[in-house]
Amino acid sequence: MIIDCHGHYTTAPEPHTRFRTAQLAHFKDPAAPSPVMPRVSDDEIRESIETNQLRLQRERGADLTLFSPRASTMGHHEGDEAVSLSWTRACNDLVHRVVGLYPDNFAAVCQLPQSPGAPLAQVIQELRRCVLELGFVGCNLNPDPSGGHWTSPPLTDRHWYPLYEAMVELDVPAMVHVSASCNPNFHATGAHYINADTTAFMQFIQGDLFRDFPTLRFVIPHGGGAVPYHWGRYRGLADMLKRPPLDGHVMRNVFFDTCVYHQPGIDLLVKVIDADNILFGSEMVGAVRGIDPLTGHYFDDTRRYIDALAIPDATKRKIFERNTRRVYPRLDRQLEARGR
Amino acid sequence: MIIDCHGHYTTAPEPHTRFRTAQLAHFKDPAAPSPVMPRVSDDEIRESIETNQLRLQRERGADLTLFSPRASTMGHHEGDEAVSLSWTRACNDLVHRVVGLYPDNFAAVCQLPQSPGAPLAQVIQELRRCVLELGFVGCNLNPDPSGGHWTSPPLTDRHWYPLYEAMVELDVPAMVHVSASCNPNFHATGAHYINADTTAFMQFIQGDLFRDFPTLRFVIPHGGGAVPYHWGRYRGLADMLKRPPLDGHVMRNVFFDTCVYHQPGIDLLVKVIDADNILFGSEMVGAVRGIDPLTGHYFDDTRRYIDALAIPDATKRKIFERNTRRVYPRLDRQLEARGR
Repeated sequence: MIIDCHGHYTTAPEPHTRFRTAQLAHFKDPAAPSPVMPRVSDDEIRESIETNQLRLQRERGADLTLFSPRASTMGHHEGDEAVSLSWTRACNDLVHRVVGLYPDNFAAVCQLPQSPGAPLAQVIQELRRCVLELGFVGCNLNPDPSGGHWTSPPLTDRHWYPLYEAMVELDVPAMVHVSASCNPNFHATGAHYINADTTAFMQFIQGDLFRDFPTLRFVIPHGGGAVPYHWGRYRGLADMLKRPPLDGHVMRNVFFDTCVYHQPGIDLLVKVIDADNILFGSEMVGAVRGIDPLTGHYFDDTRRYIDALAIPDATKRKIFERNTRRVYPRLDRQLEARGR
Repeated sequence: MIIDCHGHYTTAPEPHTRFRTAQLAHFKDPAAPSPVMPRVSDDEIRESIETNQLRLQRERGADLTLFSPRASTMGHHEGDEAVSLSWTRACNDLVHRVVGLYPDNFAAVCQLPQSPGAPLAQVIQELRRCVLELGFVGCNLNPDPSGGHWTSPPLTDRHWYPLYEAMVELDVPAMVHVSASCNPNFHATGAHYINADTTAFMQFIQGDLFRDFPTLRFVIPHGGGAVPYHWGRYRGLADMLKRPPLDGHVMRNVFFDTCVYHQPGIDLLVKVIDADNILFGSEMVGAVRGIDPLTGHYFDDTRRYIDALAIPDATKRKIFERNTRRVYPRLDRQLEARGR
């Protein structure tokens, strides 16, 4: 089977989006009406999914998508801790309903109610709720809840350890995923996302996080940011900084998806990164929605790039399915329970 | 001939470094002694160059290096505007002396006396001094003088236009190059540098800078950051954002160096980026100083990667020499005057 490890609910029904707008308006001006949780009908959800993610999943021949709330609207930098919590719960609950309607096609990954400078208690609580009560199999962790000002400590800092303890206990990985940028220097999907991926990887080289948490796992999306292209630089920096070689120091715990939107990029990824560390992903419907005039196919139809690789079928099977089941063991158990 | 477009004086003599330490100490505590400009002897300069950059240039078979002050110690975020100016002048004067001692081996590129939030008057004045009085052929422009907090406007903002007017008038390009990071999230050479490269490129896509300055030229170092690896993403984003195709919109004015420290990265670069936009560079003695155990050669011996490419000799000649002479016309004229 083909599992897409990286899909977002970028097409959530309009009442959901309207709730967010009203919520932020109320935060800015408490005289504005306090919104109530939106009523979104099953039909509205079906409509938004069947004409988008599900249609594309079928057209492109994937079987299941790890599905999380839209990343760019997590907006951890907007409002405050309470706003982040109520918005995050609404987003996760909506994803939960999608999975309830299409259990064969989607498995749920949660947004976390982060807020710049806030402690992690509510983040851990929401992770527990999603995993233990709603059957989520992973989470998205934002290394920069300030939205482009980078005011939080690095991911290797002890600040994050309580969350990592919960992730290890629950046996769920995190995808490292920033949200929108409120810094005009950084276009969200063109700079902030890719920079965050690169930044997180370098933090993992500098730190000793996986000595403290040998079973903690991160997926770095967008093909690992700049890392595979600069793989020699990172191997060399690890050496210069007297860190252990990357295979044992970082690559037992860190995985890259395949959201790289052209064949030469995927070729490079698979050439320099061990296939055990690569998870199929497309981020559709996502960052880049058009058709590549050079190929006549959608940029984000990443399955085509993997299909075109001259690698053994067993290796493709790792990338398409086995690695993701290994990194997301709760997904694996859910699939096994359904005979898949 | 082989021109390395990216070399820094990372081995400057100790009195120079001591001056900087004393300068910053005086800034923090005006009761500390105000340092005088360091006396550095020709012999000290010769020693620092001949045992390092010149030795490696000869060993690796390059002919000339575009040489600028050490990037990581530009430190625009330290001190204030006056500190930045006096330090920058000291750095540029030192590079000028290197070129005076080894005019066949080095040509000078200047640091700019930037300071977060400061106007550009002294930046332009120092650029003029270096180019018109000292024969410099280009400059390094820091898109984030805050050192990792990204508080300046994007490179496409009108804030920068007076500098661009001077660059166009003087016919010198800028390499987009940040300095050290004072944000613990960003390792300088492992994250901040690469992020800045990626960020600048995306800003150029979003803006219309080269409509306003059709002859303005930038070199984005470190192989263009993440850009070539994500070339499909950038082509797709240009399309989604209703920007013109990248070849006319950005790639008449933007060039990437070859500071990518492994063969697969260089292979990708040359595959996806037009050879006219690639300038040979090594950044030695620089970010990564060790030997790659996979090859037995220095990571930053980037000439080997170009030599190994299965591309026509005429294309290699573009990368090694002709593109750099085109992008740095003042260098070209200096070389022609010397019969090279």
